[in-house]
Amino acid sequence: MRLARHGLPGAEQPLVADSEGIWHDLRPITPDLTAAGLPAVLGRGLDAAAISALPTVPTVQRFGPPLAGIGKVVCIGLNYRDHAAETGAQIPAEPILFLKTPDTVIGPDDEVLVPRKSVKTDWEVELAVVIGHQARYLDSPEDAAAVIAGYAISNDVSEREFQVERGGQWDKGKNCETFNPLGPWLLTADEVADPQQLGLRLWVNGEQRQNGNTANMIFGVHHLVWYVSQFMVLRPGDVINTGTPAGVAMGLPGQPYLRAGDVVAVEIDGLGRQEQTFGQA
Amino acid sequence: MRLARHGLPGAEQPLVADSEGIWHDLRPITPDLTAAGLPAVLGRGLDAAAISALPTVPTVQRFGPPLAGIGKVVCIGLNYRDHAAETGAQIPAEPILFLKTPDTVIGPDDEVLVPRKSVKTDWEVELAVVIGHQARYLDSPEDAAAVIAGYAISNDVSEREFQVERGGQWDKGKNCETFNPLGPWLLTADEVADPQQLGLRLWVNGEQRQNGNTANMIFGVHHLVWYVSQFMVLRPGDVINTGTPAGVAMGLPGQPYLRAGDVVAVEIDGLGRQEQTFGQA
Repeated sequence: MRLARHGLPGAEQPLVADSEGIWHDLRPITPDLTAAGLPAVLGRGLDAAAISALPTVPTVQRFGPPLAGIGKVVCIGLNYRDHAAETGAQIPAEPILFLKTPDTVIGPDDEVLVPRKSVKTDWEVELAVVIGHQARYLDSPEDAAAVIAGYAISNDVSEREFQVERGGQWDKGKNCETFNPLGPWLLTADEVADPQQLGLRLWVNGEQRQNGNTANMIFGVHHLVWYVSQFMVLRPGDVINTGTPAGVAMGLPGQPYLRAGDVVAVEIDGLGRQEQTFGQA
Repeated sequence: MRLARHGLPGAEQPLVADSEGIWHDLRPITPDLTAAGLPAVLGRGLDAAAISALPTVPTVQRFGPPLAGIGKVVCIGLNYRDHAAETGAQIPAEPILFLKTPDTVIGPDDEVLVPRKSVKTDWEVELAVVIGHQARYLDSPEDAAAVIAGYAISNDVSEREFQVERGGQWDKGKNCETFNPLGPWLLTADEVADPQQLGLRLWVNGEQRQNGNTANMIFGVHHLVWYVSQFMVLRPGDVINTGTPAGVAMGLPGQPYLRAGDVVAVEIDGLGRQEQTFGQA
């Protein structure tokens, strides 16, 4: 099941797609897709007949983030061997965690702003895991599947000077406004045969920059959910950005960081496509 | 003006104190004190007569956090010279930022849980700055006062092994459940003559461990608000934990980290007192 939200920022309405990809209005089921309301929507067990009975939406307006009221965005650093190598970092012995604040989340095709005084704004295609049920001290990675609602595309936009040259912790370069396009849709976990077999791709101004596969994660999705749950409580609607493969600007010859006017397109198998035009804050 | 919330977790009701410290029911003004609703409450300009006209609350139940719906908690690392010294760290050239997730925030006297497998759970008394109006790329520290709603006590509970010995970023040791007691009240900024002249004190099982003053911050409150606003947007109800003075367990002889059963008391001049009994997750 694909779940999404469309409409003006802050006034989005919920959508669900049928098996042919036609969008239906989810408002007869719920007024909005919220983090807190996600378990109830998943628990409805909407089948094809129930979805088809909902009114169709002939024209999807702007996609918003597929969830409102996200509580936290946990990010995993250096989780692909090729990305660790391109940044000159060691392969981590256990997952590296950092955070994005939920107010960085925007729709998949919304404008992303290059921060003032930024000269190193970078891209990162990532598989986002959306939590559907509370996870607290999970016993093992095998318990992770039961708490995952589904998956979406995330662009973990990053300012490298702020992240690593301005003292301290990475969060300083990860939380600029508009730095987390999410969506276009949340694909429920039952429709993802294997989260470790998904191709991820990213283009800048039409030139392909990233072309990875979740098979190359150092720590897989289930391991990550289990691991994070040992340090913090994961709640419905929380998001985990699971790391990016090689091909970011920081690791490329000439370091072609983003400027206002650049267009970034992002795809993950089965999760749709994002396209952001960058502006200047 | 002191603003607070009391009642059972998740069902708190708003309070305001009169000049004699007697609590009044704020529900005739607002159903709750929320981050999003904070500018409206501050904008009411409640005077002594208006507060006195509200029903008194003879018995305050449990204090909750003084705000619901906090969007983000930005933390400042190593912001007192004596604390930097005790941890063996350099004096930072510019503020170090990290994050706590809002779901770590609990009431000032709620039980704090020592995480499973933790052997280095530590305390940190901190002055919390509560944002009242959006701050985005402030021109100078002089513009900070206008966006500050007020101040509260924060205990930035920290697990040192998770924070610095488990790879990567500090966030891993800062976001365990219950790790941010906040309150008991929010004192509005107009009643704080100088935020850089506040004594901060902390006791463990009756033994004083911290005894500092905000005069010894490396970067003052107004500088911090201005600085953070260059990297992320601060919104009403966002909280900045401004760092802790010397005296944490990590820096003491024998490193007396916290165990279930320990009682931590925390005070800041004019902001009241917290007292947490620690339990085991």
